[in-house]
Amino acid sequence: MSLIVTFTDFGAAGPYLGQMRAVLHREAPRVAVIDLFTDAPGFDPRAGAYLLAAYAPEFPADAVFLCVVDPGVGGDRRAAVVEADGRRFVGPENGLFEIVVRRASAAHWWEITWRPERLSASFHGRDLFAPVAARLAKGEAPPGEERPLAELRRPDWPDDLAQVIYIDQFGNALTGLRAANLPDGARLRVAGRALDRAHTFSDRPTGEPFWYENANGLAEIAVNRGSAAAVLELTVGASVEVVRE
Amino acid sequence: MSLIVTFTDFGAAGPYLGQMRAVLHREAPRVAVIDLFTDAPGFDPRAGAYLLAAYAPEFPADAVFLCVVDPGVGGDRRAAVVEADGRRFVGPENGLFEIVVRRASAAHWWEITWRPERLSASFHGRDLFAPVAARLAKGEAPPGEERPLAELRRPDWPDDLAQVIYIDQFGNALTGLRAANLPDGARLRVAGRALDRAHTFSDRPTGEPFWYENANGLAEIAVNRGSAAAVLELTVGASVEVVRE
Amino acid sequence: MSLIVTFTDFGAAGPYLGQMRAVLHREAPRVAVIDLFTDAPGFDPRAGAYLLAAYAPEFPADAVFLCVVDPGVGGDRRAAVVEADGRRFVGPENGLFEIVVRRASAAHWWEITWRPERLSASFHGRDLFAPVAARLAKGEAPPGEERPLAELRRPDWPDDLAQVIYIDQFGNALTGLRAANLPDGARLRVAGRALDRAHTFSDRPTGEPFWYENANGLAEIAVNRGSAAAVLELTVGASVEVVRE
Repeated sequence: MSLIVTFTDFGAAGPYLGQMRAVLHREAPRVAVIDLFTDAPGFDPRAGAYLLAAYAPEFPADAVFLCVVDPGVGGDRRAAVVEADGRRFVGPENGLFEIVVRRASAAHWWEITWRPERLSASFHGRDLFAPVAARLAKGEAPPGEERPLAELRRPDWPDDLAQVIYIDQFGNALTGLRAANLPDGARLRVAGRALDRAHTFSDRPTGEPFWYENANGLAEIAVNRGSAAAVLELTVGASVEVVRE
Repeated sequence: MSLIVTFTDFGAAGPYLGQMRAVLHREAPRVAVIDLFTDAPGFDPRAGAYLLAAYAPEFPADAVFLCVVDPGVGGDRRAAVVEADGRRFVGPENGLFEIVVRRASAAHWWEITWRPERLSASFHGRDLFAPVAARLAKGEAPPGEERPLAELRRPDWPDDLAQVIYIDQFGNALTGLRAANLPDGARLRVAGRALDRAHTFSDRPTGEPFWYENANGLAEIAVNRGSAAAVLELTVGASVEVVRE
Repeated sequence: MSLIVTFTDFGAAGPYLGQMRAVLHREAPRVAVIDLFTDAPGFDPRAGAYLLAAYAPEFPADAVFLCVVDPGVGGDRRAAVVEADGRRFVGPENGLFEIVVRRASAAHWWEITWRPERLSASFHGRDLFAPVAARLAKGEAPPGEERPLAELRRPDWPDDLAQVIYIDQFGNALTGLRAANLPDGARLRVAGRALDRAHTFSDRPTGEPFWYENANGLAEIAVNRGSAAAVLELTVGASVEVVRE
């Protein structure tokens, strides 16, 4: 049996996740659901795209990703199912799947043309995307038309994003840069400071900022036993510059 | 098999939800549990009553709602099971179920007279309400006495509440007003500004406050790609005035 | 079938809990998982040790506790399985299990010598501890060497800790003191004020700070319908003094 992984900007506490889970429970009661992010950057499909691409490969190949960062809900953006190297992603066609598609060796997509009896103007996560994700997880085909990849909205975003894309519970600042693509000895300049690379937290003195390759391959700005976001006054969107030796 | 839906002011992170879920797991291991709200307004059964009444109809008719907003715990407030149009609600008799009862075509209630071996003074959610919800979900009768509806504490609250009752992750401010009860063309005055109605977020320029009917029928004050709570300095309890044309 | 209980400082929202749950789902899909704390004090195994010891006895004797408060990850701290009065705890050997061990009538421990194929430098919760917890929950033996208790790192911490160890969603300040160990009539001095003991919240006037025995036996500093942390300006680590009559 498949697995549904949620990726949203809903927050862990409020009513949105619970309502979406109620739909999944009704439509696919035996499918496990795991919340990957409930705090993806709000209104920001671009930052979300780099996060999703870094974390999705962690999950089984038959996982269905239910992705809702959807500031254009109720407007004319289309609804999409994307399949990238076997993993399926359901959500708005707003670029959220761009980096996953770009990095895949094979990708397909379907426009979701099915509509539920009741479709609210503001909560397609509950009304449209969750029922579709449940169907996919049960083995059904995407309820819509497969379209050529050239017809998918493909934003002109860089392969790696030299910005802060997420700040975690500890104040670590994840960037959209994959560490493996950075040259040996590269430093990252952020908030006016050039940071050296470390292997992990405990290599560094308490309180000193550095960068390292996090457990999902991203270059992450951190402070041993402290908050990099507080020390460097970082927010999502802050620029990062790669300083080559 | 039934479903248990939690509605609490516990927070998503701390120890209260987990301890309550452990009791549900022990007493009814096969019943699914979905958290609807873990951030219902604290100490505020009135705001919670309007929230609960707006969101409960979303769930299956056999769902059991485990509701804990319980500032009077350990005092002399009674413990209740309420059945309203088939849905059952377990929690303190402090008005939290008033709006659900008021809007139901049929309602019954039981005073919970059963007591567990160990009953803490401060956490009836874990010790009393969770075991009762588990029993109901398994098909057992309420462990107490059915009483006439006239004996239920019935606060004298309005049918719709012209106040902010919840602020979500995005800064949207939900009111206790049902949009369907507002006249055509009604504007909402809040924080000194009269707001027009929109269909949904993407109809409005970025940054401009408006109100719309949210996906659960409530009048909600919002800003396209921004936080209405920040722009208008709103908190739970802020007054809303309906301005008729 | 066993139960896995998580105790972490990961936050409820971000990617760490979800990735750890994905591993548990892969390795032990039929074992239930309950999150006890996702906001244990960060970087603070000592405060966590008193919290864990107060909340663990609530859970079934065959529960496996997956505990990740791990500021030394990637350094030379060892990985441990501790068994204390039958309950098993998996996590870093940094003192997090000290109080559980100290209060147990029987304790054993194993150094985890098994290593996964991929072991990141910064996320042993996902890569090492979660797979071990899943194995224990399925009935397998700890993947390592049982060692004498004298070889476990045993910090020289007091039996009860006269400090604030956690602040909950409501602003209640939990201390590391067990109420049952305090003399009759003891007051707690904190932030310059000597607080009397109450039975529960509703015994006290709104807004007035007091202390009481919480539902898990800890002395907790609270305010009826208000935030003790705000009223008394408390943070984790604040000192508490027991004032005897």
